[in-house]
Amino acid sequence: MATNVLEVNPERLWETLERSAEIGRFREVGLRRLALSAEDGRMRDLFVEWARAAGCSVEVDRIGNIFARRAGRDPSLPPVAIGSHLDTQICGGRYDGVLGVLCGLEVVRTLNDRGLETKRGIEVICWTNEEGARFSPPMMGSLAFAKRLTLEGVLATRDDSGFSVDEALAGIGYAGKAPLGARAFDAYIELHIEQAPTLDREGRDVGIVVGGYKTQALKLTIAGDTGHAGGTPMAMRRNALVGAGYVIAAVNDIGLAYAADEGRTTTTRIESFPNLPGTYAEQAKLTIDFRHVDPARFESMRAEIDTAIAAAARRANVEIEVAEGWSWGTDLFAPEIIGLLKTTADELGLSYREMRSQAGHDAYAVATLAPTAMIFTPCVDGISHNVNEAIELTRSLPGANLLLNAAVARANR
Amino acid sequence: MATNVLEVNPERLWETLERSAEIGRFREVGLRRLALSAEDGRMRDLFVEWARAAGCSVEVDRIGNIFARRAGRDPSLPPVAIGSHLDTQICGGRYDGVLGVLCGLEVVRTLNDRGLETKRGIEVICWTNEEGARFSPPMMGSLAFAKRLTLEGVLATRDDSGFSVDEALAGIGYAGKAPLGARAFDAYIELHIEQAPTLDREGRDVGIVVGGYKTQALKLTIAGDTGHAGGTPMAMRRNALVGAGYVIAAVNDIGLAYAADEGRTTTTRIESFPNLPGTYAEQAKLTIDFRHVDPARFESMRAEIDTAIAAAARRANVEIEVAEGWSWGTDLFAPEIIGLLKTTADELGLSYREMRSQAGHDAYAVATLAPTAMIFTPCVDGISHNVNEAIELTRSLPGANLLLNAAVARANR
Repeated sequence: MATNVLEVNPERLWETLERSAEIGRFREVGLRRLALSAEDGRMRDLFVEWARAAGCSVEVDRIGNIFARRAGRDPSLPPVAIGSHLDTQICGGRYDGVLGVLCGLEVVRTLNDRGLETKRGIEVICWTNEEGARFSPPMMGSLAFAKRLTLEGVLATRDDSGFSVDEALAGIGYAGKAPLGARAFDAYIELHIEQAPTLDREGRDVGIVVGGYKTQALKLTIAGDTGHAGGTPMAMRRNALVGAGYVIAAVNDIGLAYAADEGRTTTTRIESFPNLPGTYAEQAKLTIDFRHVDPARFESMRAEIDTAIAAAARRANVEIEVAEGWSWGTDLFAPEIIGLLKTTADELGLSYREMRSQAGHDAYAVATLAPTAMIFTPCVDGISHNVNEAIELTRSLPGANLLLNAAVARANR
Repeated sequence: MATNVLEVNPERLWETLERSAEIGRFREVGLRRLALSAEDGRMRDLFVEWARAAGCSVEVDRIGNIFARRAGRDPSLPPVAIGSHLDTQICGGRYDGVLGVLCGLEVVRTLNDRGLETKRGIEVICWTNEEGARFSPPMMGSLAFAKRLTLEGVLATRDDSGFSVDEALAGIGYAGKAPLGARAFDAYIELHIEQAPTLDREGRDVGIVVGGYKTQALKLTIAGDTGHAGGTPMAMRRNALVGAGYVIAAVNDIGLAYAADEGRTTTTRIESFPNLPGTYAEQAKLTIDFRHVDPARFESMRAEIDTAIAAAARRANVEIEVAEGWSWGTDLFAPEIIGLLKTTADELGLSYREMRSQAGHDAYAVATLAPTAMIFTPCVDGISHNVNEAIELTRSLPGANLLLNAAVARANR
């Protein structure tokens, strides 16, 4: 390792992580810290307390995105931003999101330890509702920040119990005063656990993320007719749930057919009505998504899925309406930040690979506003969105140090 | 028609039906009158008012089954019972259940018009929660009356919002004082719309129901593991919803394969958890049922369904646990009551066919206690459990008159 490189404090980083994992504990080892819930509120309060104790000024925007800034020598220059999210899935792990935020905090603390100033400030960001587990869509805070969702639309979005984002923000005291989206960044770097097994299997220190898998969510509304489960002859039926079943099976078969080159298909959500014994369904709704690293293969998956949906509709004698949900592309990140991460990784002597993320991240929206890239750190067996998500400190430190040194280099540019 | 036969009052029967169809009106033409709801309470109150006005004594048992008795000459003899149910499905029709109850009331009213006494009393029964749309299982009132469910178990059963049968009975004032099941019947005759298209297509007056399709409900619990919809390689996934999709598709395919001899398979209900975008499901639950008139073909359907469930579990890499739900067999009804109905139909000059019901009915449980049979009347296109369920008065009168004359003949036995 070169002599001028900085290193984070491993014990402090781990203790901070462990402390965060007490908030929203679920099923012994995991977390349920849904966006804008009481648990999310307590985690936010703790982050703000830590950030202020580290000398940061803290601002919160109208939808609860938190910006904790360590001032630079020249306050007229846009800061280097580091961020991720504090919310989790409903059966979530302890590291998805929060690791990136707390590595950002550790960057600030490490600079404080050394008494180091940077030319540009460094801003640690917590984006609201990255997961989309309570309020849809996912990545809500960063998408709204990048003007890809409207403030009014976001505030009016309701969870399954009818509670709005606006009400939930008020409930935890995070309807902030900072105007939405009115901040410039010199660059944005997001550290995140990989959520897939590549780095863990290959034994690499870090992944330098150059973009995403091309990804599309589809929302299907399946229209049939309800009727008697006993009396109605099979040929007369228009069971919407049967249409859904054929779609789920076919979409999974397509994912299996593309698995060799890491294609993915998932049915994540189903609703059926009336959903009662004795009757069959007049309506079903499905959320599916599919992902591929190669845009041409992605298009061919899409064509197969469209064909499968049409076949399911015919076989079940139902109508299926397909609406496009969230999507993102492949070439998301900035060569200058990717280059900075590679150079810095070389200086630190890290083993790395370039990779594309299979998951959604706030960095995709921020990339439309500022030069952006991501750092992936290994997670055990690639398990994520599951309470058994796990990392090892020693295998996370390379990523944390890469973030630290790259952010400081960029901030002194 | 023979000269000694009785006839119901068509206008009065129709007006009574129309009045009942005002209670719980849903989507213009249908009904949502869920068991023990406020609407069910109002319908019960109206029935009790009508029954008392017709001179009946009314008793209600602990789970809300209503017994309205027109006394016979010899009060020591068990009465002839006529019954069905007042509750509907969530998108239900105007005739399923209530037609049988109100034809029973019309029997009483017709006897009153003529000043006719019968040797045995005639008891019109409203069974609680036949549909099972709010509280499971269906046919709850008659099953408990026949001691096939316990009183404690029934009272503790909760709907999806956590409200118990006990609380719901108290809420509408139908937790009655009559002891559960402590009544004898000389016979039980239930009139019901067919809920299938046979009588309508064949242009017959009535169906004389000699039994049911052999029917079995299965409750499947599918266990997988939740994880990231993007990151997790297809081969690592254990998506419970995918297991459910393969089962739904295969079970429907089996139903289609048995459709030529009127086999039926239905997936009626699905639950999935966490059921959120970004994750796949760790658990799914399905309720399916299958029916066939021929016990041997039924067993062969069962074997195919078991094989399909095992194949779905393998392909989706999940575990599927199968529990048996409600079931009934084929030879349910008493030759003596079937014979009475046939003789009476001949006397009335009706065109009829013997048939087996594809649906569940309270008569199946009552048949374990007293000689029982059912009368089916045509419904338009066989549509039922749907707001568009329809009947014609002229095509319903043969069944009503068959009920009247058969019940009177039996009551004078």
